[in-house]
Amino acid sequence: MPDLVPVHGGLDAPVNRVVPLSRRKQFLQEAAELPTVEVSRADLSTVYRIADGTLSPLTGPMDEATWHYVLDHDALDFGFRHYAWTAPISFPVADEEAKRIRVGRPVALVHEGEPVAIVRVTSLFEWDKPKHIEKFYGTRRTDHPGGRMILEDPRTKLLGGELWALPQVVDPEYGEFVLSPRQVRTLIAERRWERALAFQTRNPLHRAHEYALVAGVERLTRQGYFAGVVLNPLVGELKEDDVPARVRMRCYRALHDLKLLGKGDKDEALWRELGYDLTEVFELVGLDIKMLYGGPKEAVMHAIYRQNLGFTDIVIGRKHADAPYDDGTPIWGDFDAQEIFQHLRGDLRIQPCNIGFAAYFESVGRVDLIENHPGEKPVSISGSKIREMLTRGERPDERILRPEIADILIAYYREQAARKSNERQRG
Amino acid sequence: MPDLVPVHGGLDAPVNRVVPLSRRKQFLQEAAELPTVEVSRADLSTVYRIADGTLSPLTGPMDEATWHYVLDHDALDFGFRHYAWTAPISFPVADEEAKRIRVGRPVALVHEGEPVAIVRVTSLFEWDKPKHIEKFYGTRRTDHPGGRMILEDPRTKLLGGELWALPQVVDPEYGEFVLSPRQVRTLIAERRWERALAFQTRNPLHRAHEYALVAGVERLTRQGYFAGVVLNPLVGELKEDDVPARVRMRCYRALHDLKLLGKGDKDEALWRELGYDLTEVFELVGLDIKMLYGGPKEAVMHAIYRQNLGFTDIVIGRKHADAPYDDGTPIWGDFDAQEIFQHLRGDLRIQPCNIGFAAYFESVGRVDLIENHPGEKPVSISGSKIREMLTRGERPDERILRPEIADILIAYYREQAARKSNERQRG
Repeated sequence: MPDLVPVHGGLDAPVNRVVPLSRRKQFLQEAAELPTVEVSRADLSTVYRIADGTLSPLTGPMDEATWHYVLDHDALDFGFRHYAWTAPISFPVADEEAKRIRVGRPVALVHEGEPVAIVRVTSLFEWDKPKHIEKFYGTRRTDHPGGRMILEDPRTKLLGGELWALPQVVDPEYGEFVLSPRQVRTLIAERRWERALAFQTRNPLHRAHEYALVAGVERLTRQGYFAGVVLNPLVGELKEDDVPARVRMRCYRALHDLKLLGKGDKDEALWRELGYDLTEVFELVGLDIKMLYGGPKEAVMHAIYRQNLGFTDIVIGRKHADAPYDDGTPIWGDFDAQEIFQHLRGDLRIQPCNIGFAAYFESVGRVDLIENHPGEKPVSISGSKIREMLTRGERPDERILRPEIADILIAYYREQAARKSNERQRG
Repeated sequence: MPDLVPVHGGLDAPVNRVVPLSRRKQFLQEAAELPTVEVSRADLSTVYRIADGTLSPLTGPMDEATWHYVLDHDALDFGFRHYAWTAPISFPVADEEAKRIRVGRPVALVHEGEPVAIVRVTSLFEWDKPKHIEKFYGTRRTDHPGGRMILEDPRTKLLGGELWALPQVVDPEYGEFVLSPRQVRTLIAERRWERALAFQTRNPLHRAHEYALVAGVERLTRQGYFAGVVLNPLVGELKEDDVPARVRMRCYRALHDLKLLGKGDKDEALWRELGYDLTEVFELVGLDIKMLYGGPKEAVMHAIYRQNLGFTDIVIGRKHADAPYDDGTPIWGDFDAQEIFQHLRGDLRIQPCNIGFAAYFESVGRVDLIENHPGEKPVSISGSKIREMLTRGERPDERILRPEIADILIAYYREQAARKSNERQRG
């Protein structure tokens, strides 16, 4: 069966720059002789996603011309065609590291001392941070997570080239859910779906968040397609205070394995009429990729990753990938991430599936899109209140958070408290 | 990347006779109008494996001519070529059911009242049970599991035709490990292995059983190949007294996730020299397929399933798929399942990897093949003794069973005892 959607950039197949394990020894021997460039944990995921084709058609970090072209034109000038591409992707280099780098020669990318990739350098150039921030984030202000990420990085140069990376090691607790573009494409083909919808998240799903998957796949289904929906959470390690990937994956598995998705909220009549259930067209696949805190332009990148994974559609929310200024005011308009797809400056085959905020409404006795309930006050509890309850071992209102998910989080916060208490006693 | 091994029967891709979920409603409506044939739990797995291509090139149960041809020639006469095939595969039909069946018309295969497949019948014929037993099992005696399976079935007719089946529902606890031929082929391609070795089992792995995977992949590796090994256990429900698939999968996951495979037993120097470890070329994939208790001829079928899944090699043990007469005497010679591959009567691309019995030997302080220790007595505990210990909550000698695996089995036997005790109190 042919794939539902081509690889981005006009390629026949996803880029594959993963070095087989059988060549690791030789690879490490070669790397040991090379100048090194340290990559951060966040950039490490970029290394692996270039190698496995999630960032196709990139075959390495961008050279200077491409880096600027992307910021200036929101596109890759790749072959005879333009392809939508909004994020410049090159690797930062410290001045000390730069001294040993020669264009045309290879360097080893290392993380915490371990070589992870070799890049044949085609370009070593100044990191134009003001341009990066202004063009990508759409603001000259720097008091926001993306601006800080760039400015707090002491490095001033960037590196581009051709990359080959060792295979990524994934936590075995959920490793079987972290699939390459080729594997996701095979999974989608096996399901025989006509439309495959991806949903990105980095949080344990409240019932209102979860509803975006429900509303999205129900919309495609009502259009007459045999559609499936894939929860595609970030599984890399995130900010300190985020719930770790292992725990979140347990929450997502509960949602999947216990067939909770859309329970009480889905359009029962629709699914009954179709003769199959929402929970039968629902899959879980993890993705480890760098967060850019980039709002609308990051939304385009989210879509590109998913097209490479084989999805035809991606849920784009209001305030998608939002990260406001430190004073709490927004950088972007609520709908910017949805509107940017109307004005792309290059080819993109995946479709945005715009979904607004949802909440539980007493008038319908279920979660629904807020836009369907003008003037009605939804059931609402603040995120910090929910976290307080979970920390105390209490299940929040099940109209907000499913008890099966709450129990997993309660167990996590309990373990975390015990660990901290132990550390205090030892320390 | 091209697959390492072609699909059996000269096909370009595995057979796909799975009906998409989106057509289930229509499928069930059609099935409701059709004559029905009940399929057993064991034959149900055959239905699904025909549909997903594990039994390629079959597109349905065999017609009368093919059924006899296979028994007479151990091959499929498929196109211009002969392909090795040792087991006749048609579905039994009760006399009452047969009355309503017309050749050329469809029937619904049902399991416990639920339609699972539709077969357009091309053949309805007498089940020649004496021939089936004598040719497949190589004996006229019937006091063995395979003979009993055939003789105790009251049905006397068989059905052949073209099959389409609904998707199989797999236990979500381990569903992500049960992959179709296309998915296994993608997994193998992703690993970039040059040889992919499969190992079949239906038992929790003792350290001596586990060693077959170690010895097999080490042999291929020493031959200069970048080889991987996949533990490919049966996950269907087995005999009453077998450890259930869920529990066995927990054991296999522990072996995989805790990197226990070959611990203490593998050739450390070999792997150190290669620069990657045995545990890095080890994967787990479940398979639900019918057991035939057929010794050498079943071994050929085991190989065919694995070729369709994309494996280049399969471990064939001494007494492979063995099932002796009720008096304990063997039907087949110890090496018959290995020798049959020397005299195949049709094309088969997967290679047998013959591995003898293994055990722990004090002289080397690890598990090793028995053939390397003539005259030396290995460390040994009977299976029933091990089970007694586990039932009492005791870990057996770790030279026999790894403690991490023992703990999973102890927990299972404890739960089972508690459940039985509860049932007695209620009953």
